Amino acid sequence: MNRQIRLAARPVGAIADSDWEHRSEAIGSPGPGEFLGRTTFISLDPAMRGWLDDRPSYIAPVGIGEVMRAGSVVEVIESNNERFAVGDLVVGSFGVQEYVVTDGRGARVIDPSLAPASAYLGALGMPGLTAYFGLFEVGELQDGQTVVVSGAAGAVGTVVGQLAKQRGCRVVGIAGGPDKCAMVVDELGFDSCVDYKNENVRRALREHCPDGINVYFDNVGGEILDAALANIARGARVVICGAISQYNNTEPAPGPSNYMALLVRSARMEGFVVFDFADRYGEALPVLGAAVASGALQIREQVVQGTVDDFPQTLQMLFAGENTGKLVLAL
Amino acid sequence: MNRQIRLAARPVGAIADSDWEHRSEAIGSPGPGEFLGRTTFISLDPAMRGWLDDRPSYIAPVGIGEVMRAGSVVEVIESNNERFAVGDLVVGSFGVQEYVVTDGRGARVIDPSLAPASAYLGALGMPGLTAYFGLFEVGELQDGQTVVVSGAAGAVGTVVGQLAKQRGCRVVGIAGGPDKCAMVVDELGFDSCVDYKNENVRRALREHCPDGINVYFDNVGGEILDAALANIARGARVVICGAISQYNNTEPAPGPSNYMALLVRSARMEGFVVFDFADRYGEALPVLGAAVASGALQIREQVVQGTVDDFPQTLQMLFAGENTGKLVLAL
Repeated sequence: MNRQIRLAARPVGAIADSDWEHRSEAIGSPGPGEFLGRTTFISLDPAMRGWLDDRPSYIAPVGIGEVMRAGSVVEVIESNNERFAVGDLVVGSFGVQEYVVTDGRGARVIDPSLAPASAYLGALGMPGLTAYFGLFEVGELQDGQTVVVSGAAGAVGTVVGQLAKQRGCRVVGIAGGPDKCAMVVDELGFDSCVDYKNENVRRALREHCPDGINVYFDNVGGEILDAALANIARGARVVICGAISQYNNTEPAPGPSNYMALLVRSARMEGFVVFDFADRYGEALPVLGAAVASGALQIREQVVQGTVDDFPQTLQMLFAGENTGKLVLAL
Repeated sequence: MNRQIRLAARPVGAIADSDWEHRSEAIGSPGPGEFLGRTTFISLDPAMRGWLDDRPSYIAPVGIGEVMRAGSVVEVIESNNERFAVGDLVVGSFGVQEYVVTDGRGARVIDPSLAPASAYLGALGMPGLTAYFGLFEVGELQDGQTVVVSGAAGAVGTVVGQLAKQRGCRVVGIAGGPDKCAMVVDELGFDSCVDYKNENVRRALREHCPDGINVYFDNVGGEILDAALANIARGARVVICGAISQYNNTEPAPGPSNYMALLVRSARMEGFVVFDFADRYGEALPVLGAAVASGALQIREQVVQGTVDDFPQTLQMLFAGENTGKLVLAL
C-alpha cells in the first residue's frame, strides 16, 4: 500500500494534527512514459506553511484532500520512461507519500556519489538555489561586503553564509541559541553570529557591522528584520526570502517599523521566490556542486528517521526552531 | 535688516511655534566671489520635518540656532561673482531669510521667460527632479504600465502623474478630498483618483488597477502604503519618496504589514533621495523644461503671499494636507 499525508483542513495559526489526513491507497502502476518511485527522503520547508493557506500567492495552495506537496528523493523501481532507469535516484516534487507514479516532468536524476542523496533537497536543491539567486541576483552581492543572514543555521542560511564567505565577505549570522551560533562560526566559518534569544539584535548588529549591512538576507521577518533595517548601509539590499516568525500569525502583524531606513539610506528591499530563476538552475547547480566537492560548501542537515506518518510532527520542528541545517525525513 | 527664521528647539511631534526663533540681523556685504541676493520665493517641503530631527539621515540636521534650511529664489542685488549679474534670478538653498550672502555654489541662474520663477522650486526644481528620477530610475517605469501615486495633488505627485501619462501609462492618483481628486483627473489628465478621506483605498485600488500596480510612488506612508502593497503586480517597484503621514510621529509607527507581498509578487521597495542623482540633474532639467514648454507638464502651485515670519504657519499647511500643488511663500 501507498501511505500518504493529505491536507484535511486549512490550518488557522499553527498547524493542528487534525489538519492532516493519513491515508493508505493501492500503489499505482506506471503508464506509458511514466515511472514508479519509492520515496527515500522527504523535504520539510518553512514555505510549506504558506502553501496551506488559500490566498493569492506565487503558487496555488494545496487543495483540501490533496497529497501534501513536498520535494522528495525517490528510487525508481519500475519505469516506462527512458530518462529514468530502475535504480536511479530522482529528485522532484512528489508529495508526502511512500510511492509516486509520475512522468518525471520537472524532476532530475541525481548523482549520489557527489553528495548524500538528501543533499539534493538542501544545499544542492531548492534551499541551495534559493541562497544562490537570493544572494547574487536579488542581493547583488559584491566581493568584500558585509552580509547578515537570519535563520543562519537553517537550510538556506547555512548556504548563504558559506557562499558569501567564498566571495571574501564579512558574514554575520543571526540564529537562536548558543549551539547554532557556535556551529555557524566554528564549523562553517561565519565571522560572527548573533543569538537572538539572548542578545539585543539591533545593538549586536551595530557592533558586528560597524560600517553597516550591505546585504541583509531575511528568512525570519518580525523584530529581527526591523533590527537589521536599523543597521543598513547606504545602497543596501534587503532580500526578503521568508518570514518564518510570522507564518503562524492569525492577525496581520505589524510590518517593519524601520522601513524608512530604505529612504534615508537609498536602499532596497526585494522579495523573490526561487521559481523566478527556474530557467537558470542549470547555471547555479554546477557552482553549488563544485563548492561541495571542494569543501567550500559544507552540507548541514538534520535527518529524522521515520515514516510518512511522522511528517506532521517533524514539520513542527521548523516553526519551533528545533532543527539545525536542512530538515529531512528519511523513510 | 535681514529678517530670518532660525531653529530654536527640536520639535517633538508636530512643530510648535516655540521651535522657531524670528530674528533680524544686519544685511551682510558680499566679499570677493560672493553676491548679495534678496529672497523672492521660499520653498516649503515635507522633507523639512526630517531636517529638524537629530538622527542619522541622508543630510545633517539643521542645527539649533541656525537659519532654517530652504530652497529659495533670490534676485541678485549686488555681485562680486561674474556668474551672477545684478538682476539675475537665482535658485539655491539659501534658507528662510530675506537676504543672503553666498558664493553661489550649487545655485543656478533661472530663466523666468520659460516659466514663473517659483516653478524652479517645483516642477523645474527639486520636486520635479524627484518625480523624474523616482519614476524612471528607481521605479524603472515602462511605457503603458499602471502607476499609482499618493500625495497626487502635491508638488511631486502632480509631476509624477503627468510624466507617466506622457509615457502612455495608466495613472491612478491618491489624494485627500474631492477637489484634489477632480483637479488631477480633470486638469492634469490622470485616469482616476482615489479620495482616501472618503474611500476604502485598498478596495478602490483593486477596482482601478485590475491587473495590479506596476509602480507605486509613495509620498505618504502609513495605511495607504499598506493598501498599495496589497495591490501590487508581479515584479512591481514601490518607490519610497516620503511618508508625510508619519513625520510627526513621536513613537515608532507600525511598518507596512503587507510587506510580504514583495515576496509573493517578487517585487521591490526602494527608497531614494533626489541628491542621489545630483550629477544627473543636467539630464533631467531639459526634459522637464521641454515638457513645460509643450504643455505636457502643467505647473500647479499654491503661492502664499507674506513675509518670512509667515514661514512657520505656512509650513503647517503641508502636514494638514491643505495645499494643492507646490507650496511656496512669496515675499
